[in-house]
Amino acid sequence: MKRFGQVIGIRKECLDEYRRIHVKLWPEIEAAIREAGIRNYSIFHFDTHQDGLLFASFEYHGPDTEFDARMARLAAAPRMREWWNLTEPMQIPLPGRNQGQWWLDLEEVFHLG
Amino acid sequence: MKRFGQVIGIRKECLDEYRRIHVKLWPEIEAAIREAGIRNYSIFHFDTHQDGLLFASFEYHGPDTEFDARMARLAAAPRMREWWNLTEPMQIPLPGRNQGQWWLDLEEVFHLG
Repeated sequence: MKRFGQVIGIRKECLDEYRRIHVKLWPEIEAAIREAGIRNYSIFHFDTHQDGLLFASFEYHGPDTEFDARMARLAAAPRMREWWNLTEPMQIPLPGRNQGQWWLDLEEVFHLG
Repeated sequence: MKRFGQVIGIRKECLDEYRRIHVKLWPEIEAAIREAGIRNYSIFHFDTHQDGLLFASFEYHGPDTEFDARMARLAAAPRMREWWNLTEPMQIPLPGRNQGQWWLDLEEVFHLG
Protein backbone atom coordinates (compact mmCIF):
# COMPACT_ATOMS: atom_id res chain seq x y z
CA MET A 1 0.00 0.00 0.00
CA LYS A 2 1.23 3.48 -0.85
CA ARG A 3 -0.14 6.76 0.51
CA PHE A 4 -0.45 9.93 -1.54
CA GLY A 5 -0.95 13.56 -0.56
CA GLN A 6 -1.83 16.14 -3.18
CA VAL A 7 -2.77 19.81 -3.39
CA ILE A 8 -4.49 22.09 -5.88
CA GLY A 9 -6.07 25.54 -5.81
CA ILE A 10 -9.85 26.02 -5.77
CA ARG A 11 -11.59 29.15 -7.02
CA LYS A 12 -13.47 30.80 -4.18
CA GLU A 13 -16.60 31.28 -6.30
CA CYS A 14 -16.65 27.56 -7.24
CA LEU A 15 -16.37 26.09 -3.76
CA ASP A 16 -20.08 25.59 -3.12
CA GLU A 17 -20.54 23.81 -6.43
CA TYR A 18 -17.40 21.70 -5.84
CA ARG A 19 -18.79 20.66 -2.45
CA ARG A 20 -22.19 19.90 -3.96
CA ILE A 21 -20.99 17.59 -6.73
CA HIS A 22 -18.85 15.66 -4.21
CA VAL A 23 -21.70 14.90 -1.81
CA LYS A 24 -22.81 12.07 -4.08
CA LEU A 25 -20.14 11.17 -6.61
CA TRP A 26 -21.34 9.87 -10.00
CA PRO A 27 -21.47 6.06 -9.70
CA GLU A 28 -19.23 5.58 -12.77
CA ILE A 29 -16.50 7.72 -11.19
CA GLU A 30 -16.77 6.04 -7.79
CA ALA A 31 -16.61 2.59 -9.40
CA ALA A 32 -13.56 3.53 -11.48
CA ILE A 33 -11.69 4.89 -8.44
CA ARG A 34 -12.39 1.69 -6.49
CA GLU A 35 -11.46 -0.49 -9.48
CA ALA A 36 -8.10 1.34 -9.63
CA GLY A 37 -7.37 0.21 -6.05
CA ILE A 38 -7.77 3.64 -4.45
CA ARG A 39 -9.11 3.65 -0.89
CA ASN A 40 -9.59 6.06 2.00
CA TYR A 41 -9.69 9.06 -0.33
CA SER A 42 -10.37 12.37 1.38
CA ILE A 43 -10.35 15.93 0.09
CA PHE A 44 -10.10 18.78 2.61
CA HIS A 45 -10.67 22.48 1.95
CA PHE A 46 -8.27 25.08 3.33
CA ASP A 47 -10.16 28.39 3.37
CA THR A 48 -7.64 31.18 2.83
CA HIS A 49 -10.45 33.71 2.36
CA GLN A 50 -9.21 34.16 -1.21
CA ASP A 51 -8.96 31.28 -3.66
CA GLY A 52 -8.42 28.34 -1.30
CA LEU A 53 -6.53 25.07 -1.45
CA LEU A 54 -7.77 21.49 -1.66
CA PHE A 55 -5.66 18.85 0.09
CA ALA A 56 -6.28 15.27 -0.96
CA SER A 57 -4.98 12.06 0.55
CA PHE A 58 -5.60 8.52 -0.59
CA GLU A 59 -4.12 5.05 -0.45
CA TYR A 60 -3.24 2.91 -3.44
CA HIS A 61 -3.82 -0.77 -2.74
CA GLY A 62 -2.27 -2.69 -5.58
CA PRO A 63 1.04 -3.83 -7.04
CA ASP A 64 3.59 -1.06 -7.69
CA THR A 65 4.10 -2.51 -11.16
CA GLU A 66 0.43 -1.95 -12.05
CA PHE A 67 0.13 1.61 -10.74
CA ASP A 68 0.75 3.46 -14.02
CA ALA A 69 -1.53 1.17 -16.01
CA ARG A 70 -4.30 1.44 -13.43
CA MET A 71 -4.10 5.23 -13.36
CA ALA A 72 -4.25 5.27 -17.17
CA ARG A 73 -7.33 3.04 -17.04
CA LEU A 74 -8.87 5.32 -14.41
CA ALA A 75 -8.25 8.36 -16.60
CA ALA A 76 -9.99 6.59 -19.49
CA ALA A 77 -12.99 5.41 -17.44
CA PRO A 78 -16.57 6.14 -18.57
CA ARG A 79 -17.60 9.76 -17.85
CA MET A 80 -14.17 10.67 -16.40
CA ARG A 81 -13.50 13.31 -19.07
CA GLU A 82 -17.02 14.67 -18.47
CA TRP A 83 -16.29 14.81 -14.71
CA TRP A 84 -13.00 16.60 -15.27
CA ASN A 85 -14.70 19.08 -17.62
CA LEU A 86 -16.79 19.98 -14.58
CA THR A 87 -14.04 20.08 -11.94
CA GLU A 88 -11.00 21.40 -13.83
CA PRO A 89 -12.38 24.92 -14.42
CA MET A 90 -13.02 25.16 -10.65
CA GLN A 91 -9.43 24.32 -9.83
CA ILE A 92 -6.11 26.18 -10.09
CA PRO A 93 -3.28 23.73 -10.76
CA LEU A 94 -0.03 24.61 -8.98
CA PRO A 95 3.52 24.90 -10.32
CA GLY A 96 6.05 22.13 -9.72
CA ARG A 97 3.86 19.17 -10.54
CA ASN A 98 5.04 16.21 -12.54
CA GLN A 99 4.45 15.81 -16.26
CA GLY A 100 0.84 14.91 -16.99
CA GLN A 101 -0.29 15.57 -13.39
CA TRP A 102 -3.16 17.91 -12.53
CA TRP A 103 -2.73 17.84 -8.74
CA LEU A 104 0.67 18.54 -7.16
CA ASP A 105 2.09 15.53 -5.30
CA LEU A 106 3.29 16.25 -1.75
CA GLU A 107 6.11 14.68 0.25
CA GLU A 108 5.01 12.61 3.25
CA VAL A 109 7.25 13.69 6.14
CA PHE A 110 5.55 11.60 8.84
CA HIS A 111 3.33 8.57 9.16
CA LEU A 112 2.00 6.67 12.15
CA GLY A 113 -0.23 3.72 11.22
CA MET B 1 -14.34 6.93 13.68
CA LYS B 2 -13.83 10.58 12.74
CA ARG B 3 -11.32 11.93 10.23
CA PHE B 4 -9.42 15.17 10.67
CA GLY B 5 -7.50 17.35 8.23
CA GLN B 6 -5.30 20.15 9.52
CA VAL B 7 -2.83 22.69 8.17
CA ILE B 8 -0.03 24.85 9.57
CA GLY B 9 2.89 26.80 8.15
CA ILE B 10 6.47 25.51 8.32
CA ARG B 11 9.53 27.76 8.23
CA LYS B 12 11.61 26.97 5.18
CA GLU B 13 14.85 26.93 7.19
CA CYS B 14 13.36 24.41 9.68
CA LEU B 15 12.08 21.84 7.22
CA ASP B 16 15.12 19.54 7.27
CA GLU B 17 15.11 19.42 11.07
CA TYR B 18 11.31 18.87 11.12
CA ARG B 19 11.74 15.95 8.72
CA ARG B 20 14.61 14.54 10.78
CA ILE B 21 12.80 14.48 14.13
CA HIS B 22 9.80 12.79 12.51
CA VAL B 23 11.75 9.88 11.02
CA LYS B 24 11.74 8.19 14.43
CA LEU B 25 9.24 9.78 16.79
CA TRP B 26 10.11 9.74 20.51
CA PRO B 27 8.54 6.56 21.95
CA GLU B 28 6.65 8.55 24.65
CA ILE B 29 4.98 10.71 21.99
CA GLU B 30 4.12 7.77 19.75
CA ALA B 31 2.64 5.85 22.70
CA ALA B 32 0.55 8.85 23.79
CA ILE B 33 -0.84 9.36 20.27
CA ARG B 34 -1.84 5.69 20.04
CA GLU B 35 -3.29 5.72 23.56
CA ALA B 36 -5.48 8.69 22.51
CA GLY B 37 -7.01 6.55 19.73
CA ILE B 38 -5.32 8.34 16.85
CA ARG B 39 -4.52 6.18 13.82
CA ASN B 40 -3.35 6.56 10.24
CA TYR B 41 -1.69 9.89 11.00
CA SER B 42 0.19 11.42 8.07
CA ILE B 43 1.87 14.79 7.64
CA PHE B 44 2.63 16.00 4.11
CA HIS B 45 4.80 18.95 3.11
CA PHE B 46 3.65 21.42 0.47
CA ASP B 47 6.75 23.17 -0.81
CA THR B 48 5.79 26.70 -1.86
CA HIS B 49 9.47 27.66 -2.27
CA GLN B 50 8.95 30.14 0.57
CA ASP B 51 7.73 29.08 4.00
CA GLY B 52 5.70 25.97 3.17
CA LEU B 53 2.62 24.30 4.54
CA LEU B 54 2.20 21.07 6.47
CA PHE B 55 -1.00 19.17 5.80
CA ALA B 56 -1.94 16.54 8.40
CA SER B 57 -4.67 13.94 8.35
CA PHE B 58 -5.56 11.41 11.01
CA GLU B 59 -8.40 9.25 12.27
CA TYR B 60 -9.79 9.30 15.79
CA HIS B 61 -10.98 5.85 16.85
CA GLY B 62 -12.88 6.28 20.06
CA PRO B 63 -16.17 7.49 21.50
CA ASP B 64 -17.17 11.06 20.58
CA THR B 65 -17.87 11.70 24.25
CA GLU B 66 -14.25 10.91 25.18
CA PHE B 67 -12.59 13.00 22.48
CA ASP B 68 -11.96 16.17 24.50
CA ALA B 69 -10.72 14.26 27.55
CA ARG B 70 -8.41 12.11 25.42
CA MET B 71 -6.95 15.14 23.65
CA ALA B 72 -6.37 16.80 27.05
CA ARG B 73 -4.62 13.65 28.28
CA LEU B 74 -2.53 13.59 25.07
CA ALA B 75 -1.52 17.22 25.61
CA ALA B 76 -0.42 16.36 29.16
CA ALA B 77 1.51 13.21 28.17
CA PRO B 78 5.14 12.73 29.25
CA ARG B 79 7.57 14.76 27.12
CA MET B 80 4.75 16.34 25.06
CA ARG B 81 5.60 19.89 26.18
CA GLU B 82 9.26 19.14 25.44
CA TRP B 83 8.27 17.90 21.94
CA TRP B 84 6.18 20.99 21.28
CA ASN B 85 9.03 23.23 22.46
CA LEU B 86 10.97 21.67 19.59
CA THR B 87 8.26 21.78 16.91
CA GLU B 88 6.33 24.98 17.65
CA PRO B 89 9.16 27.40 16.77
CA MET B 90 9.44 25.62 13.38
CA GLN B 91 5.76 26.18 12.63
CA ILE B 92 3.65 29.20 11.67
CA PRO B 93 0.12 28.84 13.05
CA LEU B 94 -2.59 30.14 10.73
CA PRO B 95 -5.47 32.51 11.40
CA GLY B 96 -9.01 31.19 11.81
CA ARG B 97 -8.28 28.27 14.10
CA ASN B 98 -10.41 27.36 17.07
CA GLN B 99 -9.64 28.45 20.63
CA GLY B 100 -6.73 26.48 22.06
CA GLN B 101 -5.83 24.92 18.69
CA TRP B 102 -2.34 25.11 17.20
CA TRP B 103 -3.14 23.55 13.81
CA LEU B 104 -6.05 24.88 11.72
CA ASP B 105 -8.85 22.33 11.25
CA LEU B 106 -9.99 21.86 7.65
CA GLU B 107 -13.40 20.97 6.26
CA GLU B 108 -13.63 17.55 4.61
CA VAL B 109 -15.48 18.08 1.32
CA PHE B 110 -15.16 14.51 0.04
CA HIS B 111 -14.54 11.02 1.34
CA LEU B 112 -14.53 7.63 -0.34
CA GLY B 113 -13.72 4.76 2.03
